[in-house]
Amino acid sequence: MTEPSSVAKTGSAPDPTDFANYFCTYGFLYHQKDMLEDHKRTGAYYQAVMSNKRQFAGKVVLDVGTGSGILAIFAAKAGARKVYAVEATGIAASARKLIEHNKLSYVIEVIQGTIESIDIPEKVDIIISEWMGYFLLRESMLDSVLVARDKFLKPGGALYPSHASMYLAPIQSPNSQQRMSEFHGSMEGWADFLQDMKNFYQVDLDVLSDSYRQEQREYYLSTSQWTDTHPQQLLGPASCFKRYDLHTLTLEELKEPMKEDFIMHVTDGGPVDAFCGFFDVEFKGSSENPADVEVKLTTAPDPTGATHWGQQTFYISPPIDCAPSDHLKCAIGVSRRQDNHRLLRVKVAAKVEGNSMFAAQSQSPRMLEYNID
Amino acid sequence: MTEPSSVAKTGSAPDPTDFANYFCTYGFLYHQKDMLEDHKRTGAYYQAVMSNKRQFAGKVVLDVGTGSGILAIFAAKAGARKVYAVEATGIAASARKLIEHNKLSYVIEVIQGTIESIDIPEKVDIIISEWMGYFLLRESMLDSVLVARDKFLKPGGALYPSHASMYLAPIQSPNSQQRMSEFHGSMEGWADFLQDMKNFYQVDLDVLSDSYRQEQREYYLSTSQWTDTHPQQLLGPASCFKRYDLHTLTLEELKEPMKEDFIMHVTDGGPVDAFCGFFDVEFKGSSENPADVEVKLTTAPDPTGATHWGQQTFYISPPIDCAPSDHLKCAIGVSRRQDNHRLLRVKVAAKVEGNSMFAAQSQSPRMLEYNID
Repeated sequence: MTEPSSVAKTGSAPDPTDFANYFCTYGFLYHQKDMLEDHKRTGAYYQAVMSNKRQFAGKVVLDVGTGSGILAIFAAKAGARKVYAVEATGIAASARKLIEHNKLSYVIEVIQGTIESIDIPEKVDIIISEWMGYFLLRESMLDSVLVARDKFLKPGGALYPSHASMYLAPIQSPNSQQRMSEFHGSMEGWADFLQDMKNFYQVDLDVLSDSYRQEQREYYLSTSQWTDTHPQQLLGPASCFKRYDLHTLTLEELKEPMKEDFIMHVTDGGPVDAFCGFFDVEFKGSSENPADVEVKLTTAPDPTGATHWGQQTFYISPPIDCAPSDHLKCAIGVSRRQDNHRLLRVKVAAKVEGNSMFAAQSQSPRMLEYNID
Repeated sequence: MTEPSSVAKTGSAPDPTDFANYFCTYGFLYHQKDMLEDHKRTGAYYQAVMSNKRQFAGKVVLDVGTGSGILAIFAAKAGARKVYAVEATGIAASARKLIEHNKLSYVIEVIQGTIESIDIPEKVDIIISEWMGYFLLRESMLDSVLVARDKFLKPGGALYPSHASMYLAPIQSPNSQQRMSEFHGSMEGWADFLQDMKNFYQVDLDVLSDSYRQEQREYYLSTSQWTDTHPQQLLGPASCFKRYDLHTLTLEELKEPMKEDFIMHVTDGGPVDAFCGFFDVEFKGSSENPADVEVKLTTAPDPTGATHWGQQTFYISPPIDCAPSDHLKCAIGVSRRQDNHRLLRVKVAAKVEGNSMFAAQSQSPRMLEYNID
């Protein structure tokens, strides 16, 4: 089957550094399978499209980062007149094959290139994309969706999903002590290593101990971890500290470091071993073209198991003590890392407030910092 | 302590793509520790320097990729008059600290930059470097040592190490069947996945099955693995198929795809489950300035455990059958990968020769291909 005779241009590949840092993993079917068989994810998109066929019928749709092509296929099956499926990596070839095999090439056009570099010959009614990374913002792929919106979405057009929210919850976690033990174990290993280096080669490496401790501390204690958190671990309700309306959010706002104040209720009391971070997205359509059926995809702790995003757990050592009546007055900062704009730095300040002795002793907030790698 | 007042220039950092692909890991002390505490490695360099103090005394030395600075320190302790220690990554700061703390700043100058971009104010008598990657050539760091040699080594000067050799040996390995089982398990998982995708979303992904099988075959069966091979697994002696004299090897020769013919003796007979690849390097000095004591660092299978390089195991499924009297007529090709010049593609052709029925049945050579990732 030949390519449809559209005037759409093929765009350029990601720059090689960004490819090495980021895009490379998306070129493998193995990784596509991992995402596709996350049925909470794929099922939510399927529902969002198939329950809103009236919105898709006869419309022009753009899929940003189509990967295997699955969302483009959903849109086509829902009756879209035309779907532009944009993919930066070589997996675009698999998307083309899949679309041809499913006899949808007359609707879907796969364009290999970055959204920033490609062009399409018309404006679109709907942009669909699965752009979410760990803790929502890792990967910074939402940037490309906003670029696509500004370049290609008709006035009144809809984004699927349309809204995104970020949450932090207090949890108890045996892993917190475990990580601390591993950190101490690592430092004991360093001490043995110093001794060996002195004995074998008469070189004293002790001057590097502070740097090593700092490096290991970052790794074991200040790097968030993927976890499948059980709801029973929650010590209180999750606080929504940020909500994005993707129709109005600007690229500039998104790129700025985020800083939000919020209250975290620790209903069950402490000690709080960790904060559990997660997100949800909602498919509500635009105000001009609202969805007939609103769908929500959440990555909250779930007794039936996590999505492939899991939750991001930020360990707190030593834990924060507080009583059931207390709450935490929090401030969170989320910014992109200078060494790699697709990774994140998270800072949390937390102060116990309430009537307990813990609150009375909490003079200044605990300052916690993490990398999301 | 201030920097020595040399006119040496600080060079530029590696290009960002090469940094993301390669240099990044070397910026961590954790990784430096892994290499330093490989005492077969560090001990061999220590011996090569300390047993040849007469060669180092009063000399100017260049350490290419100094990392923590350890080889520069050995050279200084052996009496070098001046050591230039070049390091591309941020670990250069740790090398400086270590050198200052060991009161060797008056001898050793740390220069941060790539060897290709830096300059030093004089020619050197000795270049020392630990540049070896898996299967010797992975990482392609020998390139930089040859560049350093051509830019900075005095005529008659010596390289430490001076020679490198590559080996392949026939082995028996339970992992070979294990990998094949994992491959089959992965394809069974794919079949279940196809069924789910059809049931849940009415999308048939079977057209991608061949690509997935190819991808998984590459991963499970055509990617070499790090192993700590026990000498008891050897079915015959290792064949040296390549030997480099680093004083005469040109950068052009090194970059060209290697192609070598050799005979592999399978003393114990087959089945041969895998080839075990490893290397050694020798510290012999130059012909004008030969080492007083020659030292060899080998990564051959060792009952006391592997170096941090281990061995690279190339699985053969199904195994090659042969009798104790047979040998394998082999051709090996080793080339740099197009997607990343620091990674390797290895091709082996092997034909059973001898008087057995296996040899009689072996009409054409087995063609095997592998990635070293």
